[in-house]
Parts: sequence; structure tokens; C-alpha cells
Amino acid sequence: MKILITGVAGFVGKNIAQKLLDQGHEVYGIDNFFNSTKSDVPKGVVFFEIDVANVEWFDFFKNIDIDIVIHLAAQSSGEVSFKIPNYDCNTNVIGTLNVCEFSKKNKVKKILFASSMSVYGESQGLVSEETPLIPLSLYAVGKKASEDYLRIYSRQFDIDVACLRFFNIYGIGQNLENMSQGMISIFLAQALNEEKIIVKGSLKRYRDFIYISDVVDILEFLAKASSLNGFVTFNVGTGEKTYLSDLISTIQTVSQTKKDVIIQNGTLGDQNGIYANNSKLIEITNKRKFTTLNEGLQEWVTTLKRENNFEN
Amino acid sequence: MKILITGVAGFVGKNIAQKLLDQGHEVYGIDNFFNSTKSDVPKGVVFFEIDVANVEWFDFFKNIDIDIVIHLAAQSSGEVSFKIPNYDCNTNVIGTLNVCEFSKKNKVKKILFASSMSVYGESQGLVSEETPLIPLSLYAVGKKASEDYLRIYSRQFDIDVACLRFFNIYGIGQNLENMSQGMISIFLAQALNEEKIIVKGSLKRYRDFIYISDVVDILEFLAKASSLNGFVTFNVGTGEKTYLSDLISTIQTVSQTKKDVIIQNGTLGDQNGIYANNSKLIEITNKRKFTTLNEGLQEWVTTLKRENNFEN
Repeated sequence: MKILITGVAGFVGKNIAQKLLDQGHEVYGIDNFFNSTKSDVPKGVVFFEIDVANVEWFDFFKNIDIDIVIHLAAQSSGEVSFKIPNYDCNTNVIGTLNVCEFSKKNKVKKILFASSMSVYGESQGLVSEETPLIPLSLYAVGKKASEDYLRIYSRQFDIDVACLRFFNIYGIGQNLENMSQGMISIFLAQALNEEKIIVKGSLKRYRDFIYISDVVDILEFLAKASSLNGFVTFNVGTGEKTYLSDLISTIQTVSQTKKDVIIQNGTLGDQNGIYANNSKLIEITNKRKFTTLNEGLQEWVTTLKRENNFEN
Repeated sequence: MKILITGVAGFVGKNIAQKLLDQGHEVYGIDNFFNSTKSDVPKGVVFFEIDVANVEWFDFFKNIDIDIVIHLAAQSSGEVSFKIPNYDCNTNVIGTLNVCEFSKKNKVKKILFASSMSVYGESQGLVSEETPLIPLSLYAVGKKASEDYLRIYSRQFDIDVACLRFFNIYGIGQNLENMSQGMISIFLAQALNEEKIIVKGSLKRYRDFIYISDVVDILEFLAKASSLNGFVTFNVGTGEKTYLSDLISTIQTVSQTKKDVIIQNGTLGDQNGIYANNSKLIEITNKRKFTTLNEGLQEWVTTLKRENNFEN
């Protein structure tokens, strides 16, 4: 298969790219290195440095019969979306529209899209795909609009599309230097390298944390599936609800640290508590077993220690 | 009051601008003349030619305490949105985000936004504000995303916002040369100037047609209202359902023409039948009486004849 991955240098992008390369697929990729560097692009990817919002990338791939686009390129922080709204909208909304247009023009068969649990916004607690979408951040508006664009292109131009509403993904390859994105990576970086763990918002908030290798499994399954029967949207979470207080204890235990925890004001557009009804995910992918938080953190910290990537 | 109107040279823009100027308000405006010309800008408007998607317009108004933004600038055709998706998204989505950012930075008190009944999309028949939004055109996705952005800015930054979901507006000032936008203006232009009336889609479709002077009354009321109490979204239609077959008969009768009617395939993303539950509009504005289709068409055609704007 010929697979184009947008945001191939990102956390999820480089992980799925590596797996597909290992299996002998032809992997093409673009990235603008907004939150990554050249060294994040797995060796073997046919790579072009360009922003997904810049249509010039269409030319790079015009003579290659791309079968599948895995569209991951995005500004990925709700907090940051309020600081650079135009960049967020351009990359995330125009970027998706470009993926749609490219796929229409080049007869791409399938698009897998990184949507987000943030589309639920004000809808709290256990959410299913039928729960109303009331975005709280500008980032979430862009993800919701992207799903709408993709649904229309899927139906009008006969492209299989899966929108994966990712809950909080964590694990090996996540950027430990970005303090605006990735709840676990932020706390883990602080536990390992800082004096204190700073929590922006209440410890009573809760989330659904899914380990990177589970997400890679799901993307791989969907890439290989013979047909998605049109347009499908589903939650990608474990169904487990973890309070931030428990998360931080687990991080401290696994990383063998004991830092003071400082509570600060929440960030704009943050959600209080949310976790996934993942029955649709299970129905589609037949994936029933998910890495536990403890297992995932253990594996990640062990890897970090081996790479000697932190100070203490 | 100091009022900034984006899209001031457009159909609705020039009509509301003229009314506010007549009442002695200071009216500022921008437009990119995508579907209009300099002659459409009412005399007395402090005008700058610029696209709403270009943030440079912020500078023009940075020393003027704008009280209200009436945000009408948009690519306004569902059909055209499929032909120039990037332009549509840039003007309509980035454009709205710019209005939001400008209003936040300049402490604008109120934004009135031209949303559209197209946000209902697949939801057919009589629609209220609680009806699910399932856009069928790229244009509709942009309007829906704009409402989401505006809701967030309204709540986070304390700006009164009204999103007016316009149904089919028609009347004096509408562009009779644009054959992609304005159902009545297209048919009327054909009845007056062409050999045939070409209908793209079934005559059994139905719509809710609201006359321009009613829309201007509603915008004027909202501009002057002391407070909107935060964020509000409502249908702006008459509540009357008119089949296309009846619309075309009325147009032929009022214009005293009898042209052949040719049925062609529908356009991408078109809606079948939709009309407004307008009880929320009535509750907010207390407007109970609407110009009938016959009255509106009579006034428009009489005006056109006086201006000798057509051939037969």
C-alpha cells in the first residue's frame, strides 16, 4: 500500500509510520516541524517539509497513486489555539480541506483522520458518538468542522473516511519538551526533570488515557480493512476513567519520584471530566484489550531510562 | 453608535448600512468586491477595500471605538463552495475568526452574524434551533464552525453575539447577475432577461423566503437592543413554506412574463425542503408581521421597472 501521512513527524505520525514501514508499505509524509524536528521523521519515509495548509504539497504526490491518507497534521493544543487562532484554523481546518481536495482529485480510497474527544466540549462524563458536540476551545471547533468536511467529501466523492475521536494518547515518542500539550507528558516531564508538578486546573478532573501502541494497532487495522463502508466516526479511548489525582500518584510511583504538586488556574476551554464509551470502536476493530495506565507508564519510563533521557 | 459592517457592499450589507446611515449612525465598512462593486457601497460609509480574512483591516479601526460589528462578509453560495473550497473556508471561517479576535481586542460590545439555514443540511422540513445540524455543503460547514467560534468568544470574552440563521432573503439590491446565489434573484433575472427559467433540482423543493426589508428591521432591532444577554442563535424566516413550483408561478405573474421552465439536475449539497420555526425570532424581536412573497416581489419588480434595469 502507498500511504501518505500528514504530520508524520508528530507523536502518532512517527509511531504509525514506523510500523507501516516495518511491514514493507510505501510511506510518504509531510510535516512543518511546528512541534517536532527532522530527526522525528522515521528513516524510509519519502518526506517533504511543508505545511498541510499549503496546497503546493499536492504537486509532490501527483504522480504517486496514494491509496490511503492518514491525516494527523494539526496544531494539537486547546490552550494554544487561543493564543494563535489563525494558525490553528489554517493548519487544522484549511489543512483538512486540503486533504479532502487532494483525496478527491487523486482518487484516494481511504482517509483516516485524527479527530479529538475535545469536540464534545461542554458534554461531560461518559460520552458516546451520539453525545452533542459543544466545543469549548477553538481547537475543538476546527476538529468538529474537519469531521463535517470529511463527511461531505466521503458521501459526495465516494471516499472511505474514519474520524477517530482520540482521547488522551500518551507514550513513547511523545514530546516531553512541549508544556502545552499532552497531559501525561507534561506531568511526567515535570516529575522527572522539574522541582514541582504544576497542575492547571482541578485534581478532580478525569480523563481516558490510551497508550500509543493501542492507537497504532487501531490505525493499522483501519488502514488494512478492506472497506469502511463510507463514513464512520468513533471514540478511541479505553473506557477507563482516571482522576488526575490518581494519574499523578501513578506517575510518581512509576517514575520513583516524589515532587510537590501545585494547583493553578485551569486553561481556557479545558474540559472537566470525560471518558469514552468505546463500544463502537470495539465493534469496528474488534479490539478488546487495552494497555493499562500502569503498564503503559512502566514501558515508557523504562524506555526513557534506557535512553537516559532525563536528569535524576 | 459606531457600527462596522463586513461585506458592506453585499445585498444585506448595503441595505442595513443605508438604514443606519439615514438614522445618523457612524457606519464603517469593509468588502473585497467578490460579488459586488464600489458603486454598491452606500455614500457615507467610511470604507476600506479589503478581504475580511486579511487581518490588516484591524489597523484601520484600531483608533475607533466600534460598538457593534455586523458580520456579513462571506462567500454565500453552497454550489460555489465546492468549486473554490479554500476561498470559501478562508473568507467564511478565518474571516469570522478575525471578527472574533478584532472584537476581543477592541472590546466590541456586540456582534450580529449572518449565519444560514444551510447549517441544518440533512435536517429537512420545519426546523427549530434545536434541530440537528448536518451540513450538506462546504459553505454550511463554514457557517456552523463560525457559530461555534462566536459562542466561545461570547462566553470567554463577554461579547453579546446573535447568530441569525437566514433563510432565503430576496429583494431590492440583490445581484441579478450572479447566477449561483439567491434562488429568487436567479429565477427573476431569467424571467425578465432570458428565454427560459432553468431550475437546478426538483420543483417540489420548498423554501422560506424572507424579504430584505424585514431582515433589515430585524438587524436594526438587534443593533439597538440594550443587551442580548450573551450568546443567542435563531432562525430568521417567515415560517411560510413555499414550493418552487408556486414561487415560479408567482414570479411569472408579478413580472408579467411566461417563460418555459427547464428542470436540470440539482446542485451539490442542495437541500430538499426547509422552512423556519420562527417562534424564537418573534420572542426576541417581537416582530410578528412579515412581507408576503407577493408583496415583496411586487415592490421589487416595480422598483426594477422604474430603474429600467431589464430588457423586456
